[in-house]
Amino acid sequence: MTQMQYALKGTITKEMMQVATNEELAPEWICSEVAAGRITIPKNINHNFDAVGIGNGLRTKINANIGTSEKHCNQEEEIRKLDISIKYGADSIMDLSTGGDLQKILERVIKHSPVMVGTVPIYKVMANLLMENKTFSQMKPDDIFSEIERQAIMGVDFMTLHCGVTRNSLSFLKNDERILGIVSRGGSLLRRWMEKNNAENPLFEQYDRVLDICEKYDVTISLGDGLRPGAGADASDRGQFAELLILGELVDRARARGVQVIVEGPGHMPLDQIEMNIKLMKKICKQAPFYVLGPLTTDIAPGYDHIVGAIGGAIAAAAGVDFLCYLTPAEHLCLPDEEDVKQGVIASRIAAQSGDIVKGVKSAIRQNNAMSKARRDLNWEAMFNCAIDPEQARKRKSSSESADEDHCTMCGNLCAIKTDRDI
Amino acid sequence: MTQMQYALKGTITKEMMQVATNEELAPEWICSEVAAGRITIPKNINHNFDAVGIGNGLRTKINANIGTSEKHCNQEEEIRKLDISIKYGADSIMDLSTGGDLQKILERVIKHSPVMVGTVPIYKVMANLLMENKTFSQMKPDDIFSEIERQAIMGVDFMTLHCGVTRNSLSFLKNDERILGIVSRGGSLLRRWMEKNNAENPLFEQYDRVLDICEKYDVTISLGDGLRPGAGADASDRGQFAELLILGELVDRARARGVQVIVEGPGHMPLDQIEMNIKLMKKICKQAPFYVLGPLTTDIAPGYDHIVGAIGGAIAAAAGVDFLCYLTPAEHLCLPDEEDVKQGVIASRIAAQSGDIVKGVKSAIRQNNAMSKARRDLNWEAMFNCAIDPEQARKRKSSSESADEDHCTMCGNLCAIKTDRDI
Repeated sequence: MTQMQYALKGTITKEMMQVATNEELAPEWICSEVAAGRITIPKNINHNFDAVGIGNGLRTKINANIGTSEKHCNQEEEIRKLDISIKYGADSIMDLSTGGDLQKILERVIKHSPVMVGTVPIYKVMANLLMENKTFSQMKPDDIFSEIERQAIMGVDFMTLHCGVTRNSLSFLKNDERILGIVSRGGSLLRRWMEKNNAENPLFEQYDRVLDICEKYDVTISLGDGLRPGAGADASDRGQFAELLILGELVDRARARGVQVIVEGPGHMPLDQIEMNIKLMKKICKQAPFYVLGPLTTDIAPGYDHIVGAIGGAIAAAAGVDFLCYLTPAEHLCLPDEEDVKQGVIASRIAAQSGDIVKGVKSAIRQNNAMSKARRDLNWEAMFNCAIDPEQARKRKSSSESADEDHCTMCGNLCAIKTDRDI
Repeated sequence: MTQMQYALKGTITKEMMQVATNEELAPEWICSEVAAGRITIPKNINHNFDAVGIGNGLRTKINANIGTSEKHCNQEEEIRKLDISIKYGADSIMDLSTGGDLQKILERVIKHSPVMVGTVPIYKVMANLLMENKTFSQMKPDDIFSEIERQAIMGVDFMTLHCGVTRNSLSFLKNDERILGIVSRGGSLLRRWMEKNNAENPLFEQYDRVLDICEKYDVTISLGDGLRPGAGADASDRGQFAELLILGELVDRARARGVQVIVEGPGHMPLDQIEMNIKLMKKICKQAPFYVLGPLTTDIAPGYDHIVGAIGGAIAAAAGVDFLCYLTPAEHLCLPDEEDVKQGVIASRIAAQSGDIVKGVKSAIRQNNAMSKARRDLNWEAMFNCAIDPEQARKRKSSSESADEDHCTMCGNLCAIKTDRDI
């Protein structure tokens, strides 16, 4: 049975208890929100770890993408990235590997990860076809369902499935010109397959097969946004919302089967469109947990897209987004390295924390106020302890000329806090 | 005559022409906005450089703080920081030096800077008193006016003056408990002086003397927010707004004399309070240009406060803020080094650009769309040219395994743009 099916029967599972404890909320309330689909607890029945919830009333969670690519493939490096992600506070890992022995890498990630693991199964399908010297157009619908089932058996907790890239949504995309077309790998592959085979997206057409598998292993479906805008100028167009309407229907169908589901969102988007998008999505998808990539509020900062993503992510979280996918400084340029992963996770945590203060998440407000009190008391050890990255904060202070002073080298004895305290 | 006085007579100055050209706007419109005080052109009659405007309808500007401190004092390093700030796109430099030969440093900064220069004159007053083994409480009101005049003669373009820290605003602060009290150096010094001397703030009581000097040299007054919140929990309290009401009156009095004026704002502030604060300030101060430090949407990220400041700054700019003061990774820990300055300027530019897209600034939208078109065409040279930091973007791509490919190592041949283009 899935967590949602237990919740619908009023059974409070061990996982719901873990979420309740972690979030300082009542288990009964967690159970009723899971039953309603407003909270999900992505946890495959074949994967053992401490469960974490995503959704209404909970701390905003963050995901770190790791994984090899065709051009850069080193399993050990990816495992190190996983460790770094966990160290700096990721709540979830997605293995997006597309190079090397994908089966082996995913096995290692699932075994090694102390947090939920997500995938995009279509990447593996594509890689298999390439190894057989086939193109993606030659994919058989059964290939994708077999891969979903294989990964479900392995213990994957949530899967991005681009079920909303359909003839209907693509027709709206076609009639509303974009600078960039489709920037989702899954979305662009499915569109190509549909055009070459003159057929509907199998993930949509045979959605019940998806539900069968996900119900069996309690895999949470992450409904992918294959038509997400890849340029600020393309944001909030008819193609994007046509897909969203379909995702809304697919949320209903998953819930009717007791299958847990979250919905993915954009993308590149001007700052003033973010709140509208979040509220619209939450309405259309009946308060399903919402998972965003970015949004990126400007396109001109390659090398610094973790900062751009933190801007959009903070606004999105404050507007109700539940789950942030990190962006690293390498975005749009290359596969991230270990330092990129660290910077990406920290930037996402800043965004999540900024949102959580607005959401009224108790632990976030407590941590924020503890920092302010430590500053009032000029208690540097307490400041370091409250910091997102205590090592970095300590390093900067302790390598300065005021290492052992109660003030810092910015103000010296002109420190406003000291002046104010002396009155 | 000041730029505002020329504008009130309908005279379009060389400076207004420079602003009009730079902003792709009509000189007549610039002139009328300067006359109304909704645009300022900070430029001392004794300082020669290409003028830049701040305010309504213009590109959001960014300021970089440089300057020595008591604990870290190296003039050459500060000049290098100035050069780095300019290289990465700062529109303004504030010399906040508090250590060493302050007169000499400021002279060098004014001479060396190709952009407007700002100061906080009270720092110099304090430093002089310390050299004479006096405390700030022993300051004579004439000391501060002499220093303002000395700096005006030297060519300082704008000065932060904490005129709104008054008996009235301090009484509101006292009755509305904060975690952190006053975190503005100028604000805390003035409060101490007022309490020790049982007197009103001379910058408020003798505001006409301030106006006399600023009118003579066309120094733009930057009305400081001495009571800005230094903790998210302290934001938007009665002390903060009591000061704002006073600043609103002082804006009127400056405008009545033809003296240019901008208003400074917070500070540490939860994300959902930013827009309200900006709109309130703009209303109370009759659309005077608004200059903010941050706002910082969480307190727990020392080492990464440039990211936190970019979140708040982007939201503030989109809501109408005209001028962003940068924050660096060193904020709350130590005096920034050269790398901090670079990171701070770039983060602020990302924030400004994110706001400018919302404001409809043509050059910002053009640059954003040029990047998206370059991405569509997989034209890497064009991407680097559109980037905020072309060197960094180029370095990451060219040091990857896909250095000479049209794709990058993130997706390899699975690149969605390539897939989409091939359809």
